[in-house]
Amino acid sequence: MSIRFHKMQGLGNDFVVIDARNQAFFALLNFVVSVCDRRLGVGCDQFVLLEAPTLPGADVRVRFFNPDGSEAGACGNASRCVAALLGNAPVLQTAAGLLPSFVTPDGAIGVDMGAPKLDWRDVPLAGATDTLSLPLPGAPAACSMGNPHATFFDGVTDIERLGPLLEHDALFPERANIGFVERRSRDAIRLRVWERGAGLTPACGSGACAAVVNGVRKGLLARRCAVEMDGGSLFIEWREADGHVLMTGPATHVFEGMWPT
Amino acid sequence: MSIRFHKMQGLGNDFVVIDARNQAFFALLNFVVSVCDRRLGVGCDQFVLLEAPTLPGADVRVRFFNPDGSEAGACGNASRCVAALLGNAPVLQTAAGLLPSFVTPDGAIGVDMGAPKLDWRDVPLAGATDTLSLPLPGAPAACSMGNPHATFFDGVTDIERLGPLLEHDALFPERANIGFVERRSRDAIRLRVWERGAGLTPACGSGACAAVVNGVRKGLLARRCAVEMDGGSLFIEWREADGHVLMTGPATHVFEGMWPT
Repeated sequence: MSIRFHKMQGLGNDFVVIDARNQAFFALLNFVVSVCDRRLGVGCDQFVLLEAPTLPGADVRVRFFNPDGSEAGACGNASRCVAALLGNAPVLQTAAGLLPSFVTPDGAIGVDMGAPKLDWRDVPLAGATDTLSLPLPGAPAACSMGNPHATFFDGVTDIERLGPLLEHDALFPERANIGFVERRSRDAIRLRVWERGAGLTPACGSGACAAVVNGVRKGLLARRCAVEMDGGSLFIEWREADGHVLMTGPATHVFEGMWPT
Repeated sequence: MSIRFHKMQGLGNDFVVIDARNQAFFALLNFVVSVCDRRLGVGCDQFVLLEAPTLPGADVRVRFFNPDGSEAGACGNASRCVAALLGNAPVLQTAAGLLPSFVTPDGAIGVDMGAPKLDWRDVPLAGATDTLSLPLPGAPAACSMGNPHATFFDGVTDIERLGPLLEHDALFPERANIGFVERRSRDAIRLRVWERGAGLTPACGSGACAAVVNGVRKGLLARRCAVEMDGGSLFIEWREADGHVLMTGPATHVFEGMWPT
């Protein structure tokens, strides 16, 4: 017996995807830990399990696991990879709700990440605070894209020193992902993100969404903005009509494999 | 079109093996670099290509490539993985000559690594030197197992400082792999190896062979000796009958995959 899997990547974040709708599979913690190991297993940033949906309107239920076997929230890059793998612009049922996907005219894959939450209770912050201007040097803005984000604009360079300090600042009771933006123009930025629990990563999809949302709120960015990160570029639109954030970018099928069981 | 591959590992060193005898394949540098990438490809320490043998007595020709696409010499762990994958104890044709493989009564896979070279010209050293006692603090011994090795016995702890200094010592015109042994008994040692160009690694097969050869020559070890490394253990025999070194240890098939072309 073997289990079929797909290795996918988007912006340098890589994922092992197993479709449990058409093969027997039990999401055992040991299995996830083994598969995620980069030397003894397949190796990936996150393990993605596809199951039959349980909500109306969803095409597939998607569950995300960290390499330690713990279940994670929605991941934008992994969601695009799942949409690319399945085709036909599926609606994904995730722990963060329904994520519709779409295909752009030039074939890029996008997902509707929903509306950001701008209230301090939703980020969450430690107390009543204006999320547009946090009481920190540089006055970053904060929002939640399913996970807490704070974004700094322009001129911050010592990210590796500031990242861990800010992640653990008492302002963020659930810690926070910290984005650092350099603006090229109103519709193009360079972004680096210190991810909660992971440090600097090649790319962070929800961080890119948060950066554009926070930049628009501060009057610094247009609602449609290209976001360049070390791992590649995303195109983010904070849609005026419904306040949803649309994230478009690459999603690549690397290889298909059979894992012996 | 897809190319079938196998992911194997031994002692934490991992390998992608492609059998080019039964499928069209051209060993393009770009292909090797892509496949070896741990995020954008399959990920491995070395890429292994199987071809039809060109020497009498060989069952398969095995070529080893580094992740930068350059061709490498023989690798003991990779050789064991190839023998385990093919079965029937094949004779491997490598750049270092013919490597016979064997299966022990308890099913472990071994390879005959050939005879060590003990002359200073073969290590090579920079000038006429007794390879049993190099003119360095601790008087390490040196030999060649297809690549240059020097082995220190007992009491050396600051490996991360000494390793790079010794690797580049003027005594070694082609640099050297530096082994550090702690003896448990005459037939059991713990070994760490600073590998030429790679630094400390979880395990080094040729370094384990060199450690036992050098230990026997110094009168410190028996000819049959267990070698414990961070990545796992090998059993090494320096056979009296023909002076060959036999290396036995684990070799695991991790998964099989299809790489799109």
